[in-house]
Amino acid sequence: MSETNRLLQAFNHTTHQVGGHGKRNLQVLKDALADLDGSLPSDMYGTGKVMEDFQTKMANFLGKEASVFFPSGTMAQQIALRIWCDQQGLKRVAYHPLSHLEIHEEDGLKELHQIEPVLLGDENRVIHLQDVLNMQEEIACLLLELPQREIGGQLPDYQELEAISAHCREKGIKLHLDGARLFEILPYYQKTAEELCSLFDSVYVSFYKGIGGIAGAILAGDEAFAQQSKIWKRRHGGDLISLYPYIISADLYFDQRLPKMEQYFTEARELASFYNQCQAVATRPLEPVSNMFHVHMQVPRAQLEPILVSIYEETGIGLTPYLRESDDHSCTFEVSIGDRYATIPRAELAHVFHLLDERIRAIRPLSR
Amino acid sequence: MSETNRLLQAFNHTTHQVGGHGKRNLQVLKDALADLDGSLPSDMYGTGKVMEDFQTKMANFLGKEASVFFPSGTMAQQIALRIWCDQQGLKRVAYHPLSHLEIHEEDGLKELHQIEPVLLGDENRVIHLQDVLNMQEEIACLLLELPQREIGGQLPDYQELEAISAHCREKGIKLHLDGARLFEILPYYQKTAEELCSLFDSVYVSFYKGIGGIAGAILAGDEAFAQQSKIWKRRHGGDLISLYPYIISADLYFDQRLPKMEQYFTEARELASFYNQCQAVATRPLEPVSNMFHVHMQVPRAQLEPILVSIYEETGIGLTPYLRESDDHSCTFEVSIGDRYATIPRAELAHVFHLLDERIRAIRPLSR
Repeated sequence: MSETNRLLQAFNHTTHQVGGHGKRNLQVLKDALADLDGSLPSDMYGTGKVMEDFQTKMANFLGKEASVFFPSGTMAQQIALRIWCDQQGLKRVAYHPLSHLEIHEEDGLKELHQIEPVLLGDENRVIHLQDVLNMQEEIACLLLELPQREIGGQLPDYQELEAISAHCREKGIKLHLDGARLFEILPYYQKTAEELCSLFDSVYVSFYKGIGGIAGAILAGDEAFAQQSKIWKRRHGGDLISLYPYIISADLYFDQRLPKMEQYFTEARELASFYNQCQAVATRPLEPVSNMFHVHMQVPRAQLEPILVSIYEETGIGLTPYLRESDDHSCTFEVSIGDRYATIPRAELAHVFHLLDERIRAIRPLSR
Repeated sequence: MSETNRLLQAFNHTTHQVGGHGKRNLQVLKDALADLDGSLPSDMYGTGKVMEDFQTKMANFLGKEASVFFPSGTMAQQIALRIWCDQQGLKRVAYHPLSHLEIHEEDGLKELHQIEPVLLGDENRVIHLQDVLNMQEEIACLLLELPQREIGGQLPDYQELEAISAHCREKGIKLHLDGARLFEILPYYQKTAEELCSLFDSVYVSFYKGIGGIAGAILAGDEAFAQQSKIWKRRHGGDLISLYPYIISADLYFDQRLPKMEQYFTEARELASFYNQCQAVATRPLEPVSNMFHVHMQVPRAQLEPILVSIYEETGIGLTPYLRESDDHSCTFEVSIGDRYATIPRAELAHVFHLLDERIRAIRPLSR
């Protein structure tokens, strides 16, 4: 068995796992349906009470005229950008070089919509006002991902967001929020979703990240935007006869977990500080601004994996199921805090990090 | 209340409803999950046992190298046509003028893929070999929908299908099967799915029509085709983190209802003959070739609706929840036979048609 498989296997055998809400298994759906009566009618091709009620609820929460449920954010966001491009008569948008659209969607935006992206700013930081001001190209829409997931979930200052929004409005550039983790950043900004979304013309939110649903997304904006997005949803093949398995679970877990976002945020900062106390380990960002962060360890994978496996086996606590080698002598992985974290005895967790620090110190001389 | 709403309301209050499997409600999903353990892991972005097992099962059933689960047929079929067009270097396909792609998808094929369709044959009949032979345009792919839903579910002779397939192979034209109701036509053709699909390069089947699942589709073909379709699925936003609610229900209801397709077919022919014995009523086709047909009644809607409402109320049996006015003096509606039909006492059903015939005869002199 490879070390990687050993790490995953050891992780799967732990009693406590530090990230997430729990296993992604059928129980998540069963729990969502348990209290509902079987007579609840399905939605039908975008209509029906179960869908319309949730769309109204989310439109209100986000402070937008209307919202539309989508099977995925990939679909919702391409469509948002397409609508704004068509409206502006300009097939160019701007987003971060590590945007989901650029690195995880097989170039759907280019292949299906012939929209050209301008990669704005630097891979290693968030987009700043100055990047927008310096942009040479004319664009129809600017997409901001808050938090910027691929760099550990970082955020610009709220004042900078306001300035970017004001600039876009002045220039007639539409501003779209990739809010895959929008709920998760509200505690840091100390803003309501409505306040934050008021800076944007359109907003996408996801229900299987911090919310922990099965799948699904909401796209919100003004009424005309929402209507057009339904036509494009049909074109993309996303206007299913029934989306209720996703809607029901999104709705239930939204109610359950939205009030816990502050807790996840606090716990993420606590966990990050545990990591940052270890030799050769740093989180990114150093102080999380949401429930997520990345961990960077200046230890070669071949040495780090046995350490982690030994700690998982001794303590029954699993830190990460995987390691990504960033170069020959360091590794990185992502952490997102959910319901599980609160169930782990703090003293035991402190002991895990004591062991981690000790064992990294023991091998570090060998690695240089 | 409008007559239309009265008809729907009267239908909803009947004890027996003639078409379909039952109400599309949450119970359909609850039943599909009931016997499964909550520990069953979710699929993950197109991978995982629950998805891969079902894909293998369907590839075997359809006699293709590989199959890929999709959230919708709209997505699956656009992608099939796109793959064949790209492979042939020609963005033109042919299909029936009433193809789902032409009338129900908001022109997704044209808007997202810039594929130009040739509308082959006549609105009022299926595509024949002669239509294919007469076609002036070069095409990358021919799509055949079996049965042709919008004309009551009609089929070409099997020998004609074989001839079309042979012609396409000779000319290097890819042949794609819109098999939204493929399972439903096997009893008529007296062929296995594998035999029928061997005439085609790619095949789409649906799981919420005769099978009665929640939603979802399979696209099958050779290994390279399947691999490409996964890339396009990601681009379309259909590569969800979890599709298991659809897969599980598709799998369960496939096992339950595939063996009943012969029964539905027989029942459809019985029901059609009941209709055809009534004054001014004819089914299309006269003898169904699947579980479905259309009913055409040469009676004005304003006169037909009160008749139907009175029969529903007196007998507790509902024939159709809606009527579509085809012109000033006739109406039409669609019937698909499912599990419900077998539960209706035959003598009571015969009585319904006795009443229908009697009451149409009574008003027919007034309508001319």
